[in-house]
Amino acid sequence: MTSNPESLQYRRARALGPASRLFYREPLHIVRGIGTSLFDADGVEYLDAYNNVPVVGHCHPRVVDAQNRQAGLLNTHTRYLSDHIVDYAERLLATFPADLSNIMFTCSGSEAVDLAVRIARHGRAGTGIIVTENAYHGTTAAVAAISPSLGTGQPLGADVRVVPSPHRLDDVASAFPAAVQTAVDDLNRHGHGVAAFIADSIFSSDGVVSDPVGFLCGAAEVVRSAGGLYIADEVQPGFGRTGAHMWGFDRHHVVPDMAVLGKPMGNGMPIAATVLRPDLAEQFGSQIRYFNTFAGNPVAIAAADAVLDVIEDEELIGNAQRVGAYLKSQLQRMSSDLPRISEIRGAGLFLGVDVVDDDGRPDRGEADRLVNGYRDARVLIGSAGQGNSVLKIRPPLPFSMNDADRFLTVTEQLLASR
Amino acid sequence: MTSNPESLQYRRARALGPASRLFYREPLHIVRGIGTSLFDADGVEYLDAYNNVPVVGHCHPRVVDAQNRQAGLLNTHTRYLSDHIVDYAERLLATFPADLSNIMFTCSGSEAVDLAVRIARHGRAGTGIIVTENAYHGTTAAVAAISPSLGTGQPLGADVRVVPSPHRLDDVASAFPAAVQTAVDDLNRHGHGVAAFIADSIFSSDGVVSDPVGFLCGAAEVVRSAGGLYIADEVQPGFGRTGAHMWGFDRHHVVPDMAVLGKPMGNGMPIAATVLRPDLAEQFGSQIRYFNTFAGNPVAIAAADAVLDVIEDEELIGNAQRVGAYLKSQLQRMSSDLPRISEIRGAGLFLGVDVVDDDGRPDRGEADRLVNGYRDARVLIGSAGQGNSVLKIRPPLPFSMNDADRFLTVTEQLLASR
Repeated sequence: MTSNPESLQYRRARALGPASRLFYREPLHIVRGIGTSLFDADGVEYLDAYNNVPVVGHCHPRVVDAQNRQAGLLNTHTRYLSDHIVDYAERLLATFPADLSNIMFTCSGSEAVDLAVRIARHGRAGTGIIVTENAYHGTTAAVAAISPSLGTGQPLGADVRVVPSPHRLDDVASAFPAAVQTAVDDLNRHGHGVAAFIADSIFSSDGVVSDPVGFLCGAAEVVRSAGGLYIADEVQPGFGRTGAHMWGFDRHHVVPDMAVLGKPMGNGMPIAATVLRPDLAEQFGSQIRYFNTFAGNPVAIAAADAVLDVIEDEELIGNAQRVGAYLKSQLQRMSSDLPRISEIRGAGLFLGVDVVDDDGRPDRGEADRLVNGYRDARVLIGSAGQGNSVLKIRPPLPFSMNDADRFLTVTEQLLASR
Repeated sequence: MTSNPESLQYRRARALGPASRLFYREPLHIVRGIGTSLFDADGVEYLDAYNNVPVVGHCHPRVVDAQNRQAGLLNTHTRYLSDHIVDYAERLLATFPADLSNIMFTCSGSEAVDLAVRIARHGRAGTGIIVTENAYHGTTAAVAAISPSLGTGQPLGADVRVVPSPHRLDDVASAFPAAVQTAVDDLNRHGHGVAAFIADSIFSSDGVVSDPVGFLCGAAEVVRSAGGLYIADEVQPGFGRTGAHMWGFDRHHVVPDMAVLGKPMGNGMPIAATVLRPDLAEQFGSQIRYFNTFAGNPVAIAAADAVLDVIEDEELIGNAQRVGAYLKSQLQRMSSDLPRISEIRGAGLFLGVDVVDDDGRPDRGEADRLVNGYRDARVLIGSAGQGNSVLKIRPPLPFSMNDADRFLTVTEQLLASR
């Protein structure tokens, strides 16, 4: 941090405190965005290959117009009747398997995960939750306690068990369900029982794991046999990002008991939701009222509805599949003879690139060099996985073939430069 | 609920499930709002004497313009530098006592309470939380567990203790701290220790308790002596509502260790915050990162900043004091010979009216009749307190003397009509 007390970075740290971190060795001061471009305070343009919240592109005019129009008419809560929320709920639920026919709105993905876990624990005999070893599900107390990626400063709940990130397993299709079974057995042995297994359908914080398709099915069966629920965390993969499908769990041909939505839902407007089986909504809701003041307000709904319009009209799911497949194949070609890039994983416009050292071990330092190297070359990506050694490529969905070529050109230079 | 499957109410219940409740026997379908007026789908106008979220009035043009302008420029997260959030943080913190010099942004008051409780428990030896008997602090799992007003369907945490609503105590200034001491002793006896005492500074869900001024001081001393923190929940009283002061705790001449802000902060844009002592922010933040995707985004900050502009320029705190005092005195005059109205409490534009039966016991039925009677007379209020027997009057702060007279005319008719 700069020590100049006049500087924005110093003032920020002084007011917001140390929990609030910035990206990059040399942080960016972003002031404007459009499509897949972000601009800093000096007018320098960056290609955004990182942000999934602006799923239809930064400041998409249709989304901005819809939310701005509504902001001038009415912005209130859901204890009055409103067409907007009901029309949107029906439209969104139509993209889910028929069993998932109820939706409860929240403000953030964290609140939606918190609610899903709360509902799971409310109605089951057990309270145990099973997550992957580097899972991140959000910020509330209950959700931080099921988020091992927050590190050892944040204790996990006594009734929380972790299973390995699937890409570390040799025969995922059998080993992953077996790991979940081991966790179930341990929870039962300690008297906790099982409420739910929750997993990000693309395992973003575990380093992006997309394949083999179908390995989530066995895990879901195991947890249901133990009396628990399978919760699909769609905060990152949802809304078409993985290409060809609206939801990450669709790729695995599995139907969860609940799905949790967030980040891209309103293209930046705070809106999120828990989608669930009606019997679960009934069991919880008949005993406990749930009112979330800002959740499902008409301005957020207007943005969310326009997001669905744009995804459809601009065929963004197809674009995610096409451009994502191109990116992945080009990255694979480019790195095939590079020992420091051990694997490219992912689906659609959500890719993870494993960076390793000469002995094949995760190399955080080199990943950090690359992330900052991209930044200096005006391309924004991030990192994920244990030790942040996996490059995370997760752009807005209008990412074009030209954007992909620009990204690949920078990649080629960076990989050659070490 | 209507059984017509085409009706909005039927479709709403089918999609959103039973946890999501509507106001009034005959729910309202609101489509437009301006100032202190709401309009239903048939164009009928209602005087809003209930909603505190639109603190500067529904769809205030300065707030709408500010957020709309920003929505077209950039809406991203706080891991890039931004002037907006830092300028606003400094401006808002200047309204707090000097000890409270850090702020962490969230999307909702629930998230802010959850974070405050998480921080309190993280750094203390004890985990115990003390709340009032009908407290409501929000929706997350951890916060629902300290919200007894959710009813017996929602279990309280094993380390949660309740103290009586202060207005039920005879000598509040000594009895309230004594009740907190009893809770401290019981938490210690059970081995939980004490992390925090948290109270809404106007005790909204307990039925609105404003006086005697200063009774929170003793409670804060007791909990600090036990090693715990005092958290002021300002989600309802904050931003000038109680008149003469920006924050509800100011009225009591007490400085909390943390304050939690929410509802009115962005006039409907989802934005909330935990304001805290820097040593608490350091203790937590040096060990655990906190990133909340939508929190403190520039669109929400633009709305929140405009809210402060309007509160200042339209002198809304003075208006709250002036119109609130008039309303309170007129209600007292009007009800002085009515045995069914036992007490009028509150400060500024936050009033509670105790409705009792002929034996002086809380009368939910009569309160419900009145709330729905106001609605039929096109005035919106709500209810609070144990058994919802207290009328809750909590309008947007631009509530004028004319609005007050309209409210009082309806009140006079309703009180005469039984």
